[in-house]
Amino acid sequence: MDTSGPFDWLDDAARERARVGLTRRVRPRSPDDGLLDLAGNDYLGLTRHPDVARAASRAAERWGAGATGSRLVTGDTTLHGELERELASFYGTESALVFSSGYAANLGMVTGLAGAGAHLVCDRHNHASLIDATRLAKAGGARVSLFGHADPTGAGEALATVAASRRLVVSDTVFSVDGDITDVAGLVGSCRRHGAALLLDDAHGLGVVGPGGQGALAEAGLCGAGDVVVSVTLSKALGAQGGAVLGPHRVIRHLVETARTFIFDTGLAPASAAGALAALRLLRTDAWRAGRAREVARTLASELKARGLGVNTPRAAVVSVLAPSPDEAVAWAQRCRDAGVRVGCFRPPSVPDDRPRLRLTARASLTDADVARVVDVLRATSPVPAGIS
Amino acid sequence: MDTSGPFDWLDDAARERARVGLTRRVRPRSPDDGLLDLAGNDYLGLTRHPDVARAASRAAERWGAGATGSRLVTGDTTLHGELERELASFYGTESALVFSSGYAANLGMVTGLAGAGAHLVCDRHNHASLIDATRLAKAGGARVSLFGHADPTGAGEALATVAASRRLVVSDTVFSVDGDITDVAGLVGSCRRHGAALLLDDAHGLGVVGPGGQGALAEAGLCGAGDVVVSVTLSKALGAQGGAVLGPHRVIRHLVETARTFIFDTGLAPASAAGALAALRLLRTDAWRAGRAREVARTLASELKARGLGVNTPRAAVVSVLAPSPDEAVAWAQRCRDAGVRVGCFRPPSVPDDRPRLRLTARASLTDADVARVVDVLRATSPVPAGIS
Ligand SMILES: Cc1ncc(COP(=O)(O)O)c(C=O)c1O
Ligand SMILES: Cc1ncc(COP(=O)(O)O)c(C=O)c1O
Repeated sequence: MDTSGPFDWLDDAARERARVGLTRRVRPRSPDDGLLDLAGNDYLGLTRHPDVARAASRAAERWGAGATGSRLVTGDTTLHGELERELASFYGTESALVFSSGYAANLGMVTGLAGAGAHLVCDRHNHASLIDATRLAKAGGARVSLFGHADPTGAGEALATVAASRRLVVSDTVFSVDGDITDVAGLVGSCRRHGAALLLDDAHGLGVVGPGGQGALAEAGLCGAGDVVVSVTLSKALGAQGGAVLGPHRVIRHLVETARTFIFDTGLAPASAAGALAALRLLRTDAWRAGRAREVARTLASELKARGLGVNTPRAAVVSVLAPSPDEAVAWAQRCRDAGVRVGCFRPPSVPDDRPRLRLTARASLTDADVARVVDVLRATSPVPAGIS
Repeated sequence: MDTSGPFDWLDDAARERARVGLTRRVRPRSPDDGLLDLAGNDYLGLTRHPDVARAASRAAERWGAGATGSRLVTGDTTLHGELERELASFYGTESALVFSSGYAANLGMVTGLAGAGAHLVCDRHNHASLIDATRLAKAGGARVSLFGHADPTGAGEALATVAASRRLVVSDTVFSVDGDITDVAGLVGSCRRHGAALLLDDAHGLGVVGPGGQGALAEAGLCGAGDVVVSVTLSKALGAQGGAVLGPHRVIRHLVETARTFIFDTGLAPASAAGALAALRLLRTDAWRAGRAREVARTLASELKARGLGVNTPRAAVVSVLAPSPDEAVAWAQRCRDAGVRVGCFRPPSVPDDRPRLRLTARASLTDADVARVVDVLRATSPVPAGIS
């Protein structure tokens, strides 16, 4: 009996994606493929740092491969608590709560703090996980409006038109595709004029921006603010897996008791918690890493721009390079790989507009020679004629 | 400046939860607290099995603590592919896709396969992650209706009233709180009469039900069905972290290219993937484990029932014991812990009705003496007078 009928439509959908050049494939890598990596989010080069790998490895031996249950049942280990205390202390908030991913942290933060009757005012370029979080909050009775990208005045105007007594502004700090940073102080100003709370996703800020990589809140001088809550991920600068929400005690307590992606999800694997904790400790002792990541990004961007490519002006560790079309972006990234350099290739719907880019991440551990090589490879393989940007 | 105003409402909410006895706290455990654990979902006792812990540990050393990016960018390792091939082969489907958690797998499966114009017909006791998935699908334009718990006829009746051309039935296989199993063959029958697809969450089935723990699809004789898609988690019987969707090639390809919790989430940590893979291999070689877990559950339940407690009749590895009230459930679980036995305590909103329970999980590695001890402790600490159920 042919029972495949209900999924026949998937073949049409696949053909349509192929037609518009938006086919995606996973591309397995081996542990040592010899490529110079400028695609991963391991901004500080810590994921394979001996301290980090060893901490993860020992935690697996000591605790086992998994947390075995929800943090509220058996999934809470002393390791999770240690990581939360050190995260809060590093970031400058009262308290922290670790989730199984940054995605889950965002879903938990937004849905846990919104609820029926709330109104969320969101940057229109927010990350997919914040958008899904907003959709879930809406399903729970919240209302949602958008403001112009990275525009605190727009956020204030949106707040002014909203009647709800509980209002929250939701934004990325560093936007993942282009690495641009929102005006956090401006956003908090708009929020305070209207008695609103501010929820920020600092996934690409922790470890990269602010003094010693302390993150976007420290950079804006807002550590310890009672009206700001931040999510971070443990999977980028901290080189592991997982996410966390950082904020006042009462916010964290509320999330422990109400956030569905905390209550109904298995706790983060001990190895990931331990890896992130070891990375966090390196961040504290090696305060140069954050600055070096940003310096590499600035150098990469200015050198690429000088060679006629369309490049952003990075303030974090993301360098984005415009490509003429989705197909050409894919082919360009492939030529880079053939030349020994791995770069990211972002196409719709992973870009906030319809312009495909190569996305380069500036790792703190790249040498000046690495950077020069990347610039040469990007230029030599570019579909954009030299001298035209 | 006191900026805490926007979160003042959280204190009232906390007081209200305390008033109705629904306070929740994390309770950190140490690696060796000497408790006999009947609360975790490590059904086969594999999370700390030397092969599993060592595989996780070695993967962290070899690959680093994290996957460093989305599986579509840098997060795809040869380890992920190996795990997917072995999962699909064990489960009896064409293909598999690993996500960072079971929660993320459910969000990706449901939203990826629904979309605008679809109609989802859902068991009313589905797990929180399936409910969130359904809410997200609804935000994306799908319609949703519910049918009576574990009632395939009800599912068929709901399908009959729905006009949408793309219809999907969504259900847990083994329901997490009471461990009862839905009639998978009945559901598939209802689906086929109406040309609908069936999406199942086999989180508590994999490793426990079906021949050798192959899962609910094998038990129903439905391996390889073209119209059924299943999610599993790597965090329960497989003792690690992560989730997977299993199904026909074209379904998996579609999810790779469209599922937001796949595209916009960091790949599963290598240590977790390797731990799950090692556990899966043990499951293949030690086919007795699944049967032993179910046997322990049956014995526990019948012995507890014989002692006057209100217990389910387990067909998987979950034993649930009714408690008179949320407060008494918490106190009972605490008395068990004081007596050396850790049990789960489930209260609203973690139960499908308003009846609090103790939730005991039957691990394959429990000895008959362990089981006898658990029965004694549960009886001795019970708030229910002996002889009354
Ligand atoms: C801005 C942002 N927030 C959240 C996430 C999700 O974090 P995670 O991958 O740890 O789930 C990502 C990327 O993955 C991100 O770029
Ligand atoms: C039925 C069911 N589905 C999905 C999940 C989520 O899986 P995970 O914890 O791996 O995210 C759980 C529990 O955690 C569950 O009980």
